[in-house]
Amino acid sequence: MRLFLQVVSVSTAIEKIRKLAVRCDDETVPLFMALHRILAEDVRADVDIPGFTRSVVDGYAVQAADTTGSSDAIPSIFPLRGRVAMGASAGIALRSGECIYVPTGGILPEGADAVVMIEHAEQIGNEILVKKPVAHGENILFFNEDFSSGDVVCTRGRRLSPQDIGVLAAAGCIDVPVVRIPKIGILSTGNELVPVNVRPRPGQVRDVNSYVVASFVREQGCTPVLYGIVQDDREELHSAISNAAKECDAVLISGGSSKDDRDMVAAIISEQGEILIHGIAISPGKPTIIGRYGNIPVIGLPGHPASAFIVLVAIIRYLFAGMTGETDSGVRSVQATLGQNVSSSKGREDYVRVAVKNGIATPLFGKSGLLNTLVKSTGIVRIPAESEGLETGTLVEVIVW
Amino acid sequence: MRLFLQVVSVSTAIEKIRKLAVRCDDETVPLFMALHRILAEDVRADVDIPGFTRSVVDGYAVQAADTTGSSDAIPSIFPLRGRVAMGASAGIALRSGECIYVPTGGILPEGADAVVMIEHAEQIGNEILVKKPVAHGENILFFNEDFSSGDVVCTRGRRLSPQDIGVLAAAGCIDVPVVRIPKIGILSTGNELVPVNVRPRPGQVRDVNSYVVASFVREQGCTPVLYGIVQDDREELHSAISNAAKECDAVLISGGSSKDDRDMVAAIISEQGEILIHGIAISPGKPTIIGRYGNIPVIGLPGHPASAFIVLVAIIRYLFAGMTGETDSGVRSVQATLGQNVSSSKGREDYVRVAVKNGIATPLFGKSGLLNTLVKSTGIVRIPAESEGLETGTLVEVIVW
Repeated sequence: MRLFLQVVSVSTAIEKIRKLAVRCDDETVPLFMALHRILAEDVRADVDIPGFTRSVVDGYAVQAADTTGSSDAIPSIFPLRGRVAMGASAGIALRSGECIYVPTGGILPEGADAVVMIEHAEQIGNEILVKKPVAHGENILFFNEDFSSGDVVCTRGRRLSPQDIGVLAAAGCIDVPVVRIPKIGILSTGNELVPVNVRPRPGQVRDVNSYVVASFVREQGCTPVLYGIVQDDREELHSAISNAAKECDAVLISGGSSKDDRDMVAAIISEQGEILIHGIAISPGKPTIIGRYGNIPVIGLPGHPASAFIVLVAIIRYLFAGMTGETDSGVRSVQATLGQNVSSSKGREDYVRVAVKNGIATPLFGKSGLLNTLVKSTGIVRIPAESEGLETGTLVEVIVW
Repeated sequence: MRLFLQVVSVSTAIEKIRKLAVRCDDETVPLFMALHRILAEDVRADVDIPGFTRSVVDGYAVQAADTTGSSDAIPSIFPLRGRVAMGASAGIALRSGECIYVPTGGILPEGADAVVMIEHAEQIGNEILVKKPVAHGENILFFNEDFSSGDVVCTRGRRLSPQDIGVLAAAGCIDVPVVRIPKIGILSTGNELVPVNVRPRPGQVRDVNSYVVASFVREQGCTPVLYGIVQDDREELHSAISNAAKECDAVLISGGSSKDDRDMVAAIISEQGEILIHGIAISPGKPTIIGRYGNIPVIGLPGHPASAFIVLVAIIRYLFAGMTGETDSGVRSVQATLGQNVSSSKGREDYVRVAVKNGIATPLFGKSGLLNTLVKSTGIVRIPAESEGLETGTLVEVIVW
């Protein structure tokens, strides 16, 4: 084992981890269960949407040209030829100069090309006074104006939002092709670790990482499988990693934070697979391992929860995106103006926590191992490896938690 | 029933809906189940974090002052007094001029105040050559530097993020006080509606709203309870609303999109409660009803899925936030520069869909009833009621889906 880490750039790490990711199989779920799942195939509309030209207001179907010049002072007068009931056709065709009442969502009568809202009309006996002109197509949705039958309504790789679910419903997709949810094995190593319900003695720390990592994994749309705390014992660790690799699609080992422990984790991975990366030029988070155990991706995360979390956000999310086939990797970012100077070391990417308010990103200074700035911040700003810092007023991209 | 809606402003609607919301009871869940739940009480640390001064790197504990002037050319030389094992104390106190090896996460020996990274040191026999000075506190986390015992680590009303879960773990909070998940009854009305698995005939539309509303409710951290499609029949509708109000914390009725149907919904609510608002100055989404059935909030959403969705995003989310006590109402927004002029009618708030890329918000024009622009957009820009539009180049706040 080498004394020093052979660090690679963040972009190299992301590239390698993407290659390591194997997309999970497809499965079908009922539409009601598809929220936030990743669509496995393009979905096409099985019908025209809308399936008929319809009114989007309560009002009077007319020929738009007949309303030209209508005003409160000089309304146009239209004989009322009838009323459309919901879900039924008018039964008659509208001729120039006439109007037919149509409710919101009702079928537009043949011959009409616009609807005057009831608010802009007045009924007097069997005649309607129209007080405002309408344009061709106003207050209606035309047949297949939204989607034509056969159009792709949602593309593969999308994480399904409530709106997407709505579009799939409109398209008749009740059984949704999605990517199987990846199972991610999580284990914490370190003789200093105690379960969260135990009060740590000096030298001991609570196993925070199992919780942080599992929660992040869940937020990314994967299922965490917990293997608990494993002692820094070669046999025990080997057997835990081997079990997790058998049962899961990827394994995240956190802790093993000291050099000796990291080397043990690396040695175990090497025996059954390969270490691809041992050390990333990122701060915090340098002592990260990326490898495979057999064909299962295995990640060694830093032991400090704050460092582990930055590595998850900046790098490991691309592993999950690769496994689910999600197109946009789930990174949410906002632009903001840096509120204070931030200095940085050349040769590594620094991830600085910031709180964003009214478009200003205020850096939260303090040691990178602190949890409190993680909770107080909105997200992180990446300072490129080749930069020595960023000046106040710089427009920055904030990766939002 | 009035012919015209008596519209109120969006801010009035939000104010009324907040007042209508009754915060749900508290309950306790295991920490592993607490992700994205709303914290019901402030949580305090039960220990100091960290509980001991520790190293955050592998290296040599020293007195920082002893390293002054160290360089590659002229290293300082320190006798190595011993090694700290993980979880154990050094057993000896460090004196000026000496060093002790300490692993990442190890207890800093008494007398030391900084750690030199192994990358900046070299071992020759039993002596360590230090090649770079360190400052007081460098590469260590001091006892309780993150949180003191008794400090509030997470405040009530927070929607718990993965980092928050980590901080709760560090604070020993294994049983988390959270607000009970509100149950939201959802029903769709309209004789024109057919279930999603049915191919609509002309005049019919699929029940898209049950899916959109349920998905949004779930995304906001509530549990949707589905009552399906109810015919526009007074008895049937009355009995469905009454059941939903008995079984749920709030009821969302969508559809009843035509004036007659809306009036029927309003009449049923009035009989057992009160209509607070019937019509909001928002586009799309004007024909929205806010009321209570007994003491249960009841919302009548527009029948068009696209309009219903805007009303959920802009207004109804505040009902859910009130019920869960969530502090920030879950609105995510980003600042962007408007890429094109947008015109708007005075007297109502317009919500214009935009796609945001590289800080530019490009409006997606088209009728408000279209679903395709809902799927293609990043979010919406609010154009205030008093404005006639926004010009290209205006800095706008985009409410992100």
